[in-house]
Amino acid sequence: MKNNKISAYAPASIGNVSVGFDCLGLALTQPGDTVSIENGTRPGIHLVRIEGDLGRLPKKTEENVVGVVIRSMLERLGRYDAMAVTLTKGLPLKSGLGSSAASSVAAAVAANAFLGEPFTKEELLPFAMEGERLACGAAHADNVAPALLGGITLIRPMSDPPDIIRIPFPKDLWCAVVHPDAAVATRDARAVLPELVPRDTAIRQSAYLAAFVTGLQQHDTDLISRSMVDLIAEPARKHLIPHFDEVREAALRAGALGCGISGSGPTLFALCKGKRSANRTAKAMGKVYNVHQLACETYISGINAEGAVLL
Amino acid sequence: MKNNKISAYAPASIGNVSVGFDCLGLALTQPGDTVSIENGTRPGIHLVRIEGDLGRLPKKTEENVVGVVIRSMLERLGRYDAMAVTLTKGLPLKSGLGSSAASSVAAAVAANAFLGEPFTKEELLPFAMEGERLACGAAHADNVAPALLGGITLIRPMSDPPDIIRIPFPKDLWCAVVHPDAAVATRDARAVLPELVPRDTAIRQSAYLAAFVTGLQQHDTDLISRSMVDLIAEPARKHLIPHFDEVREAALRAGALGCGISGSGPTLFALCKGKRSANRTAKAMGKVYNVHQLACETYISGINAEGAVLL
Repeated sequence: MKNNKISAYAPASIGNVSVGFDCLGLALTQPGDTVSIENGTRPGIHLVRIEGDLGRLPKKTEENVVGVVIRSMLERLGRYDAMAVTLTKGLPLKSGLGSSAASSVAAAVAANAFLGEPFTKEELLPFAMEGERLACGAAHADNVAPALLGGITLIRPMSDPPDIIRIPFPKDLWCAVVHPDAAVATRDARAVLPELVPRDTAIRQSAYLAAFVTGLQQHDTDLISRSMVDLIAEPARKHLIPHFDEVREAALRAGALGCGISGSGPTLFALCKGKRSANRTAKAMGKVYNVHQLACETYISGINAEGAVLL
Repeated sequence: MKNNKISAYAPASIGNVSVGFDCLGLALTQPGDTVSIENGTRPGIHLVRIEGDLGRLPKKTEENVVGVVIRSMLERLGRYDAMAVTLTKGLPLKSGLGSSAASSVAAAVAANAFLGEPFTKEELLPFAMEGERLACGAAHADNVAPALLGGITLIRPMSDPPDIIRIPFPKDLWCAVVHPDAAVATRDARAVLPELVPRDTAIRQSAYLAAFVTGLQQHDTDLISRSMVDLIAEPARKHLIPHFDEVREAALRAGALGCGISGSGPTLFALCKGKRSANRTAKAMGKVYNVHQLACETYISGINAEGAVLL
């Protein structure tokens, strides 16, 4: 048996996209995580190396999303392959950029190739979601789906199997992303959410979401901009994000179509029309953190139409 | 001055369309209301005749939606024209088919033509909404917008001016409509609604609505069908509608894509792929009421792309 090393890359993703809490997500092109698999020396999944995590991620198979995802695939197939696995984190941890989803998806895609492609790309989704169950306590698909399939995806929550709807989008839609040096645990970000929502708020939010996906499909930049509104999570969460209002205002002043919290934060993202606007917006957002002497990383990215890929 | 008689027709409409409570509506081709205006003998709005209402509608200008709508237009223009107005109801009252909206819209379109077209069709919306304010206690646009503009419209509630988003739809989408001989007052139908909605329900509903409008735009019949779900109003209201579950089941068994309450009821509607399916569905729905010896009217209609028209 040849010792082919197989590597897969899965990108960062923006969960919620402000207007679609727990049901909308989009894929970036970068940053992202890479998982490589080689033949191991004994049966089982062995996480031999993790890079880029500053030593913070566990290496035990059952404690790392990469191990959990691959194990769920082997169990489904009834196989006991010997795998030596390397995880290279390009994504900051606990950033709200779908870090665990990127690792989970890269693991699923790499393992699927290593095992001879027993599953289609779509069929990998439930396995990748097992990684989210470990990382977040619930098998959410809103980061996993775009990281795997690319593009902008709408997920009907609590549908089993997950009902993933791909939303067409204008090609010149870009994201400006700023990750300040602060941590927000998903658990804390969920604890501040209201359990009950006034009916009128629920209706307005649903109309905003329907208007937003319509704007995407009709390439109506103005409609995208005026419907990118979060009445549910943002008011409850923005206090957890350093300088939220100021960064958002800077993004909008720089010409962004909208700006909000990526996933559960602390990363903020802005949707922009075109690469130049994204560049200008990212600079304006980063500048706010510079003024407050808080370190940050900024990225710009088109929407990644492809999702996870074999390298 | 010639005594030109000007007549306008505005169609019935289905508010909510199940999945978009208080924000989605669609226009039927029939039934509908007609408003005619001739020169009056003295200044002011005189509702000289109402037909088809079995004598149930008030004739006083300030108590009838037709009078209120036309008066709001004259007030805006600072005019005191003499108008003799006739309203011909083709729509049953309190049916949930947008009866007051059809009268309001027909009045606005007829008066606009009578006055020499001072307003565009879109600009008539706020005037027509004044009729809804009289009839329902709130200036909702979810019936008025489709009755005026045609098609399927998404309205962002509580936006001022109303933000109307036209949703493209497949040309072979038809409606089967059954109006049982029972009355549900909009006021009662609103009283049973929950003031607060569990967050997860709100999120699922918003995902359904976004999926539904995506299905319409992508001509994805299966997606339209599986996302036409009402988690908020239907569970609270269906007890007000005679034989709701049975009629709905009959519609789905007959091949409808989905079935729900039109507006606040008691009319039920089903979305169907094609005219033949709509015919079959309407018959199946009507049959349930026949079995229960409850009189009903059935209609089938394509989606009315044009909305209100001058005759």
